Amino acid sequence: MQGSEHHVERVCRESAERTQRARLAIASLSGGERSALLRAMAPALLDAAPSILDANQRDMEAGNDLSAALRDRLRLDASRIESMAEAVRMIAAQEDPVGRVVDGRVLPNGIRLEKRRVPLGVVLVIYESRPNVTSDAAALCLKAGNAILLKGGREAAHSNRAIVEAMRPALAEFGVEDSVVFVDTTERSAIPTLVTMRGMIDLVIPRGGGGLMKVVTEAATIPVVKHDAGLCHLYIDEHLDGMKQAAIDIALNAKTQRPGVCNAIETLLVHESVAEHVLPVITGGMRDAGVEVRGDERVRELDPACSPVSDEDWDTEYLGLTLSVRVVPSLEEACAHIRAHGSQHTEAIVTSSIDAAQRFVARVDSASVMVNCSTRFADGGEYGLGAEIGISTDKLHARGPMGAQDLTTFQWVLTGSGQVRG
Amino acid sequence: MQGSEHHVERVCRESAERTQRARLAIASLSGGERSALLRAMAPALLDAAPSILDANQRDMEAGNDLSAALRDRLRLDASRIESMAEAVRMIAAQEDPVGRVVDGRVLPNGIRLEKRRVPLGVVLVIYESRPNVTSDAAALCLKAGNAILLKGGREAAHSNRAIVEAMRPALAEFGVEDSVVFVDTTERSAIPTLVTMRGMIDLVIPRGGGGLMKVVTEAATIPVVKHDAGLCHLYIDEHLDGMKQAAIDIALNAKTQRPGVCNAIETLLVHESVAEHVLPVITGGMRDAGVEVRGDERVRELDPACSPVSDEDWDTEYLGLTLSVRVVPSLEEACAHIRAHGSQHTEAIVTSSIDAAQRFVARVDSASVMVNCSTRFADGGEYGLGAEIGISTDKLHARGPMGAQDLTTFQWVLTGSGQVRG
Repeated sequence: MQGSEHHVERVCRESAERTQRARLAIASLSGGERSALLRAMAPALLDAAPSILDANQRDMEAGNDLSAALRDRLRLDASRIESMAEAVRMIAAQEDPVGRVVDGRVLPNGIRLEKRRVPLGVVLVIYESRPNVTSDAAALCLKAGNAILLKGGREAAHSNRAIVEAMRPALAEFGVEDSVVFVDTTERSAIPTLVTMRGMIDLVIPRGGGGLMKVVTEAATIPVVKHDAGLCHLYIDEHLDGMKQAAIDIALNAKTQRPGVCNAIETLLVHESVAEHVLPVITGGMRDAGVEVRGDERVRELDPACSPVSDEDWDTEYLGLTLSVRVVPSLEEACAHIRAHGSQHTEAIVTSSIDAAQRFVARVDSASVMVNCSTRFADGGEYGLGAEIGISTDKLHARGPMGAQDLTTFQWVLTGSGQVRG
Repeated sequence: MQGSEHHVERVCRESAERTQRARLAIASLSGGERSALLRAMAPALLDAAPSILDANQRDMEAGNDLSAALRDRLRLDASRIESMAEAVRMIAAQEDPVGRVVDGRVLPNGIRLEKRRVPLGVVLVIYESRPNVTSDAAALCLKAGNAILLKGGREAAHSNRAIVEAMRPALAEFGVEDSVVFVDTTERSAIPTLVTMRGMIDLVIPRGGGGLMKVVTEAATIPVVKHDAGLCHLYIDEHLDGMKQAAIDIALNAKTQRPGVCNAIETLLVHESVAEHVLPVITGGMRDAGVEVRGDERVRELDPACSPVSDEDWDTEYLGLTLSVRVVPSLEEACAHIRAHGSQHTEAIVTSSIDAAQRFVARVDSASVMVNCSTRFADGGEYGLGAEIGISTDKLHARGPMGAQDLTTFQWVLTGSGQVRG
């Protein structure tokens, strides 16, 4: 039976049923109790460090053939487990999103109306590689009063299971043991099974590569908020009064400060009237930082050390030390390029012109738009939202950094004294 | 070619491409311009009344075999066209949701952060029968700066086309002619084609019966906010100090004031300790109002004129003059019944107990919960939200009455002076 379709289906159904049963229990805890639960989970992760590291060692051995980048994302050590515990403590300390009244009034007929934040119910998180997502996502869902189903990648199965086991005693202590459930199968067919469980699961958050996004988007009949890739752009405008050095600094920071993450830039667009003043400094600086610069014809005239850029490059998220560069005749052309090739994650402009900044913001349909600062700031922590469960690349429900508050829905509560409608 | 899969696909694609091209134009209009556009559309509907009524007459003739209820929803007359124009004028006068800053702060590094409402882009509305949805939905989408694709039912095709034609001159005057596009095909296969147009359509709102919901939910790869049926409950609690008459009035109002709509009740649950005091009055009153009452054993002991209720009844949205009634031993049992059979649309409790009201609100996972007032108040107009594009029965993005504000998404705008991340 093990590994068969039937077995996978049963594991998924039993896992979802467990969270369904726990849903009311976790939603019934007060905000204080949910914080106390998280404060109990943090030391439990540290206490279980030996068994988590053991399990991680097994994943690392099984993943010998993974790329260096993937192995780095998979690896845990004492300091990474300390960071996981610290994230749980931080989430415990955040403001409680549940019960918050976001709108309210007394209607003309005397009925008191309140729009309140309430838990979503059961949230499914499907993720790849990084085992810390297991405790981060669990803590954020519990903070918002939700039960969570965790479906991690096959490569991190031992680590993820050990992290869930470490959290279990704290959950049991608060009577909500099944509010965090690890979907214990490594079969790919579990994903289409889970994302069609209407009535059992209220939201699926896929975090990972294009393959995962495609599978979830095409199969899902439950609501999805995607945490997809970032193909981010920086546009350097023709108006650069006093901003030339800022343009150079922001370009280098946005590409090189942490090139493997979603809010790093992949493409630099430069207005033709300033190209010769800033481009050679930037492309030279990039090369010094180990970046391969691919440019269009005009870029290579200004800096012949650049390699030629292909049409495919404009649509590629390198997640590494490569940058595509294009010289554009206008802000409008830059915006058209971004609309054609971007992923609506984060774009930036450097300009000294208020008018140019406003036109750029209005024309670029991205979750975050940076004026005169680095794309690297697109982050829930930087925005003051606390820990994030991811960065939504969708437009509905949550857009950009998605925190505990976005793991709630609303309930309208009307309190009257016998009113009927005439 | 007409009617073939290929033709349908082409009509859908061309329609979506037209709205895509209009997207930027409508989003670029100021709030004042969008209001002026709607103010121009309202008299245009009245001016076109003769041709709209002509078209409606053709639909009515073709729909001779439709039920009386459907024919009533389909029929237009001068007063209904006046109501459509009035709705457009009301939407014109509402507050502009676009550009509203919903969150903002200055970050420690001096960057100014704003979370702003921006248009969603292109919204697809799929609806049945009532032709007034054509102008209501168009006005709400335009108000929020969106282009709209309208896919109405085959039975109202002539009426819907005539209403879109009536609005066209006003749209052209403001340079946004293609921001309202009628998908001119009556083939069912248009629906799966439209709801898989990722990158072309940002949101689909299906409004209609269970068949439409199933088709859209199963086929869609674009985000969906459903406007599904309402299987609403009223629970009469054991604590009724001074509330007995209110319980009777609310029960009768919630069932009979307008039985064909989604916020009317289908099921009445009564606590066993008050059943003999209130039930016979209610079931008698219901019968006087022409309602067929179906009850469980205890109900029929108290009022033998009730017919027996079947298991199937608990899951049936009658949308007419039938009511299922059950006597329950506790508030918890009432909530369990609602969770098992409800549609999470609207539920009500009548009680004099604060504790009972709080427990009911906490346990009932519905968009609207009424304490001591009729379920019939679940309506965007009653909530003070202005016109609604529907009542969302989903939990994500919008829940309950959905107005122009819910047809927007967010954009984070960060304005710095050269900041980079350290």
